Amino acid sequence: MSVDQLSQGRKEEMAEVSNAAKTPQGPIQVPTRLLMGPGPTTAHPRILAAQALPLLGHMHPPFIHIMDEIKEGLRYMFQTESPYTLMISGTGHAGMEAAIANLLEPGEKIIVGVNGIWGERVADLAERYQGDVIQLKADPGNTFSIAELKAAVAQHKPAILFLVQGESSTGTHQALGDGLGEACKAAGTLLVVDTVASLGGVPLFADKWGIDCIYSGSQKCLSGPPGAAPFFMSQRAVDKLKGRKTKPATYNLDLNLIADYWGWFKPARSYHHTGVVSTFYAMREALAIVGEEGLPAMWARHLAAHQLLWKGLGELGLQPYVPDAKDRLVTVNTIKVPEGVDWAALCKDAMDTYAVEVAGGLGPSIGKVWRVGVMGFNARPMAVEQVLTAFRHGLAKQGYKQPAAAGKIEL
Amino acid sequence: MSVDQLSQGRKEEMAEVSNAAKTPQGPIQVPTRLLMGPGPTTAHPRILAAQALPLLGHMHPPFIHIMDEIKEGLRYMFQTESPYTLMISGTGHAGMEAAIANLLEPGEKIIVGVNGIWGERVADLAERYQGDVIQLKADPGNTFSIAELKAAVAQHKPAILFLVQGESSTGTHQALGDGLGEACKAAGTLLVVDTVASLGGVPLFADKWGIDCIYSGSQKCLSGPPGAAPFFMSQRAVDKLKGRKTKPATYNLDLNLIADYWGWFKPARSYHHTGVVSTFYAMREALAIVGEEGLPAMWARHLAAHQLLWKGLGELGLQPYVPDAKDRLVTVNTIKVPEGVDWAALCKDAMDTYAVEVAGGLGPSIGKVWRVGVMGFNARPMAVEQVLTAFRHGLAKQGYKQPAAAGKIEL
Repeated sequence: MSVDQLSQGRKEEMAEVSNAAKTPQGPIQVPTRLLMGPGPTTAHPRILAAQALPLLGHMHPPFIHIMDEIKEGLRYMFQTESPYTLMISGTGHAGMEAAIANLLEPGEKIIVGVNGIWGERVADLAERYQGDVIQLKADPGNTFSIAELKAAVAQHKPAILFLVQGESSTGTHQALGDGLGEACKAAGTLLVVDTVASLGGVPLFADKWGIDCIYSGSQKCLSGPPGAAPFFMSQRAVDKLKGRKTKPATYNLDLNLIADYWGWFKPARSYHHTGVVSTFYAMREALAIVGEEGLPAMWARHLAAHQLLWKGLGELGLQPYVPDAKDRLVTVNTIKVPEGVDWAALCKDAMDTYAVEVAGGLGPSIGKVWRVGVMGFNARPMAVEQVLTAFRHGLAKQGYKQPAAAGKIEL
Repeated sequence: MSVDQLSQGRKEEMAEVSNAAKTPQGPIQVPTRLLMGPGPTTAHPRILAAQALPLLGHMHPPFIHIMDEIKEGLRYMFQTESPYTLMISGTGHAGMEAAIANLLEPGEKIIVGVNGIWGERVADLAERYQGDVIQLKADPGNTFSIAELKAAVAQHKPAILFLVQGESSTGTHQALGDGLGEACKAAGTLLVVDTVASLGGVPLFADKWGIDCIYSGSQKCLSGPPGAAPFFMSQRAVDKLKGRKTKPATYNLDLNLIADYWGWFKPARSYHHTGVVSTFYAMREALAIVGEEGLPAMWARHLAAHQLLWKGLGELGLQPYVPDAKDRLVTVNTIKVPEGVDWAALCKDAMDTYAVEVAGGLGPSIGKVWRVGVMGFNARPMAVEQVLTAFRHGLAKQGYKQPAAAGKIEL
């Protein structure tokens, strides 16, 4: 039917449509760039291609099968036998909120390790959910010793200890082993870990380390698009979830409801929200690629890219922002901006000249560092060499004099 | 570097990787189906193709430009001059939660129109956010008269009146004009409307009708993938947002923070979360397609598909679940299951024989209706004819006898 076949009333309604606002004109403009910042990283072409596949209904058996493949693939990613894995239909921030909103009840204590912006955000988030927040602070660029973490847990016996494995704002790698999980268990504390910038890039053993809840992101080492958050809970975490005295404020991220969409507690699925179909296709492919490579090879590849990067940066006389080698994150590397160098000008030159993304600092590291990600699809020699080329060009352009001290950096 | 070049300690770590969990094997399996349920609807091929484009950073100027195109395109969709439009990085449920969490403060009154599951969910959600919830109920299949809505607003003077324009669980279309907006304004009430199943399929005039907040979904009449929620606020709503006495519990959906990512209050953008890059590409294309067709033609096309559907259903002797013709939703059609017919068997036959999705009821309509969506890409004659073919086949298979009364249904 055309508009002029409509009834008079409908015609009048249609006639009132305003064309003041302009809809997007012509084809979408998407320049190709090498994403070497803290993420999103350049997506794997096979993962992007999966997003062009036709939609399935979010409750159709073939889609439920894909969700089951994702759950199983995540068990491998997290190194767990827990049946409680799923993808949150949202970004890493949704994963963060799902963890805190569901595992913390009003008035309960949570110790938040704060050594960058992620800890700060969780502290804010936990206050919003009426938690009794204890901030454990470390200087940016440093991490927490297992001993001090155990002591804090023993002293406060909080409901939750929250830590960030890969603090992408400062480039630190928090250790999680050495009995920390057991200490949390002994204190009745749930160990909740942010792995947004680290999952798949560095070793993680959920069961062996006694972690109770983990969330991550899709657009870092998994080389996918943003919009899904890998998520894990231990049996202890699920017991807490099921035994909640109050409903969390969030309905959208209420895991007692989402669990029945993912079949955590019974095989039959029930509708809570519409799963992000295309993004879950992408995640299914991402996990297939992880399985084909294998975690040991994937971790070794990220480590090799990190070492190649610092070899080149060292030759340029650049220094790591993170003082202690053992604290340096493999996936997101923070590089001190030398005296007299304009960090932003270098980022701009890298983008303008080479279409390579090099990022500045975030939170406590703003103006002090560049951040270079070697994650997923970009944790490969040629991507690292492109970043080094951009640094050489950008520094030379600013008349940077390589210090005599330039040379090898101990990793 | 290969695993065997690693240090001893790292080798031991790698050796501990368990392969108990199976990652997805082989290529992803996605059968092609015609999605004629309440959504997701079959996505437009051009929109799916956009999701295969390379990722941009979520703060890169070319991506900010795409976000600006989306904001402008949404102004046309919502028929508003308000600068306050954006896409929530999440599904329609995230849009729902963003609306309530940001516009309701603890203890404030909200009147929720409940005539299906969406009103029920908002009532639950508003209680979680400590609102004083007043449920205004109508029997499933019916809507609220403007007169009773005005009376309720005048009596309670709530902070919010919440209504669902297209109640997809029952197939009703709620009227929103006739001075309802003015009545809300006079009472200091914000009019919040769910248009998940209706935006783009039926007329909507945000400014003319005095609506203060609208959210929708990407996977219905916009023919996109699930994962983005079109969102709108009036100046009055934004004043309420900026003047909040408390932070909303949700950090992930705190619009005072998200606003600065979308440039609502100042041109400079600040990071809150990582926008869903691929899904926003898809939404930009969806809005370009809307602009090329034009809203009047788009509304007329949906109406024509709805009329063609009911012409065919009438000839089969099937009857609408919604008694009053003026209350019938064009986009999601609810069809009474005749005496002695197995609704689920018909859905299964439609899928098995034709790969066509016909849905059953939801909430109050479970077991009583079939739900057929004519939305976006599928609001076209051939898609409607495929559904009718499936109904003819499925009913005949069950030995359904067409009643003598079969014939024209007044729409």
